Amino acid sequence: MNFNKVGIDDVSFFKSVIGGKYVLDDKELLTIAASDQTEDLVHMPELVLQPADTDEVSKVLAYCNKRLLPVTTRGAGTGLSGGALPAFGGVVLDMRRMNSIVNLDTDNFQVTVEPGIITQELQEHVQAHGLFYPPDPASKGSCFIGGNVAESSGGPKAVKYGVVKDYVLNLEVVLPTGDVMWTGANVLKNATGYNLTQLIVGSEGTLAVITKIVLRLIPAVQHDLLLLVPFRSATEACSAVNAVMLSGITPSALEFMERDALDWAMRYTESSAVTLPDDIQAHLLIELDGNYPETLYKEAEQVTAVLQGFDTGDILFADSHEQKQMLWALRRKVGEAVKSNSVYKEEDTVVPRAALPELLSVVKRLGQKYGFRSVCYGHAGDGNLHINIVKGDMNDDDWNNKLPVAIRELFKETVRMGGTISGEHGIGLVQKQYIDIAFGKTQLELMKAIKTTFDPNGILNPGKIFT
Amino acid sequence: MNFNKVGIDDVSFFKSVIGGKYVLDDKELLTIAASDQTEDLVHMPELVLQPADTDEVSKVLAYCNKRLLPVTTRGAGTGLSGGALPAFGGVVLDMRRMNSIVNLDTDNFQVTVEPGIITQELQEHVQAHGLFYPPDPASKGSCFIGGNVAESSGGPKAVKYGVVKDYVLNLEVVLPTGDVMWTGANVLKNATGYNLTQLIVGSEGTLAVITKIVLRLIPAVQHDLLLLVPFRSATEACSAVNAVMLSGITPSALEFMERDALDWAMRYTESSAVTLPDDIQAHLLIELDGNYPETLYKEAEQVTAVLQGFDTGDILFADSHEQKQMLWALRRKVGEAVKSNSVYKEEDTVVPRAALPELLSVVKRLGQKYGFRSVCYGHAGDGNLHINIVKGDMNDDDWNNKLPVAIRELFKETVRMGGTISGEHGIGLVQKQYIDIAFGKTQLELMKAIKTTFDPNGILNPGKIFT
Repeated sequence: MNFNKVGIDDVSFFKSVIGGKYVLDDKELLTIAASDQTEDLVHMPELVLQPADTDEVSKVLAYCNKRLLPVTTRGAGTGLSGGALPAFGGVVLDMRRMNSIVNLDTDNFQVTVEPGIITQELQEHVQAHGLFYPPDPASKGSCFIGGNVAESSGGPKAVKYGVVKDYVLNLEVVLPTGDVMWTGANVLKNATGYNLTQLIVGSEGTLAVITKIVLRLIPAVQHDLLLLVPFRSATEACSAVNAVMLSGITPSALEFMERDALDWAMRYTESSAVTLPDDIQAHLLIELDGNYPETLYKEAEQVTAVLQGFDTGDILFADSHEQKQMLWALRRKVGEAVKSNSVYKEEDTVVPRAALPELLSVVKRLGQKYGFRSVCYGHAGDGNLHINIVKGDMNDDDWNNKLPVAIRELFKETVRMGGTISGEHGIGLVQKQYIDIAFGKTQLELMKAIKTTFDPNGILNPGKIFT
Repeated sequence: MNFNKVGIDDVSFFKSVIGGKYVLDDKELLTIAASDQTEDLVHMPELVLQPADTDEVSKVLAYCNKRLLPVTTRGAGTGLSGGALPAFGGVVLDMRRMNSIVNLDTDNFQVTVEPGIITQELQEHVQAHGLFYPPDPASKGSCFIGGNVAESSGGPKAVKYGVVKDYVLNLEVVLPTGDVMWTGANVLKNATGYNLTQLIVGSEGTLAVITKIVLRLIPAVQHDLLLLVPFRSATEACSAVNAVMLSGITPSALEFMERDALDWAMRYTESSAVTLPDDIQAHLLIELDGNYPETLYKEAEQVTAVLQGFDTGDILFADSHEQKQMLWALRRKVGEAVKSNSVYKEEDTVVPRAALPELLSVVKRLGQKYGFRSVCYGHAGDGNLHINIVKGDMNDDDWNNKLPVAIRELFKETVRMGGTISGEHGIGLVQKQYIDIAFGKTQLELMKAIKTTFDPNGILNPGKIFT
């Protein structure tokens, strides 16, 4: 792609549009925008812009489109596929200032927000009005809703409540031309034209810049129960996931953690909250929620009855808000903990749920074949397994050359099982070399043509999704 | 558009591909394919083809694409926007023979079907295995699932369970080139590339021909309660809809019927099931479902407590399966009943739920201004109001010239309230003249460019959605 470099006239223009204070070229600030939470990737931008509103975004995009300057939109930098990194340099559009709740419509259970609000702040705001926005990625305390929408994020509640895409009703977006448009309407059902809304969700900033998001909400749920279930076999824990689902009860979370995942998370957080007997190989964290405690207890009984068919240790029932928070905090810290241990690669495989035990076996078999160690955990109720491959003692040559072959084999097996290569992290930079496993020439050509339709000059987040 | 007419060589080719028995040019059969359930529209095809499988569809499409023959895919012909009518003649692809359940995956709560299966048959098949496919358009006893997907259908369960699009995981489609592709994967979450699946859902056969559908299912629900609530004011009934939702209980159906709707449905079906005192102006039909009867009764108490704030007549609790069936049958027959009375036009407006009373007032005000009578009913819990405008004594000149002005005004008001012009019927032929109210130039140009990307020669269902 033939992009231009950001020049002194460009900087002047941007300063005239959004104010000098928000046009950043300080090396330190550029370095922050050069990385996210994906491995050790560094892609330096030439300039960071912090627009205040849709109008500023519009003017910046129209300008960059004419000047052929790459534009990469950035949320909180918590991404796990390198989606927000400026692979071709140029301008990073840092959305942190566009962080307001535009309108909470408690009558219609809808909220309109700007993309820069932290997901947890949004959740807490609507919760205070008796409403519930369920999708809660592990990074919910720091990630932005805009990034969640752009990457089609998930989280533990997806098994019962669905993922981010299931809550997005309408989007205000800016096209490279600077044109501002709404993709749909603020309604629960819509059979009017093509679904541009869901085309933008998960498009990783490659089609348009999201400037407002209308989310549907649901009534707040009053009660929940949390169980931590130890298993002597990790494969059995995976099998138990489907047994629980087949009972007809849908937990509000059904999380799998290999022993190492929980062990490392406890060490990382200096916690001794859970005892880990030597023979325990994995845990399921099972949450049930609802408005009637007596129903919840019945469901918990049914779930434990199902679990009696498996070789489990003592089940821990979290009996206080604090204990629940502590268990969830451990679960949420697994990713960070594993990554703090070693150079790593994280895969985000997803399969039809019943194929989980097979997927886990494949991971371990490939580990033996190619000589890597893995720590697996994730949203088992959705069939979404995060596979952290830790470099450990693997030599650089194997890491750089053999591992991609192993990952390719892993992804092919995933797709063979009816699954795909990313459930909730996106393709971004790090998985694009494998996109041909998920899609053939026909789909990829269509997707690239759609990209060209929205962004003929290719300025929006170049170098992502497609090779 | 410069299409060719179907010639004798074309017929020979089609016969060689799908067998002479399934290439139909009999006038009577063509006439059947010339209409659906939309008003009194007639658009004659030149030929009807009934393919047996994906391969035959692929060969037909590749051929028609080269020969520039229009191809309009048809399900059961129950559509309400003219989506399946061959506006430019050519070939109708009648999908009735592709009606098998390819695979019911009870382990993963998924079913793979061909497009020609009747929705109710699909529901009953999965129900027999303890699973539930909720979307149930009024025509569920005769409509095909393929048409439901193509038109992004809804139905009464949408208020709790969502619409068809929320259940489609993956689609096998054939492009005009004859290329066959899957749009996604058989998984509950997917952050891999653009969402082609949701781009096809609701695209009304204009982008590709759907040949297989993977649907997610949920565990069957064990119990339900049904209440018919009479109101002395139709606007109050609409207001009560939101009051029920604000109580935090989500009914599995929340349907609104103006007096005439129920009255005409009873006359049409020769039923005397419900007594209709003179002062009753509207009804809400409220269904609650769940697995625990005691919870359901509690919820019913809460709902009736909410309703005490309104001027209602005696609430009818359906106390047997038969009575529930009878009430639902009446509700499902409203459309047919109203249409049997007069020439009509049916609008499918949808607004944020709390705007329903305002929408109803607007309809009645416009009726007075332009001299039309209307019967309103629909899925009030979703804000989806079906407005049947009956011709009655209106003269032809007013019907043809003044009414479109009135509808345009109605749709503008709908969009002003945050709504849109079709909630579940699609745009098809009859609403395309109003699509500029829902979308501006920017969105329409993008949609048309997407259409061209999929279908450069414009052979797929020409003349739909866009003017």
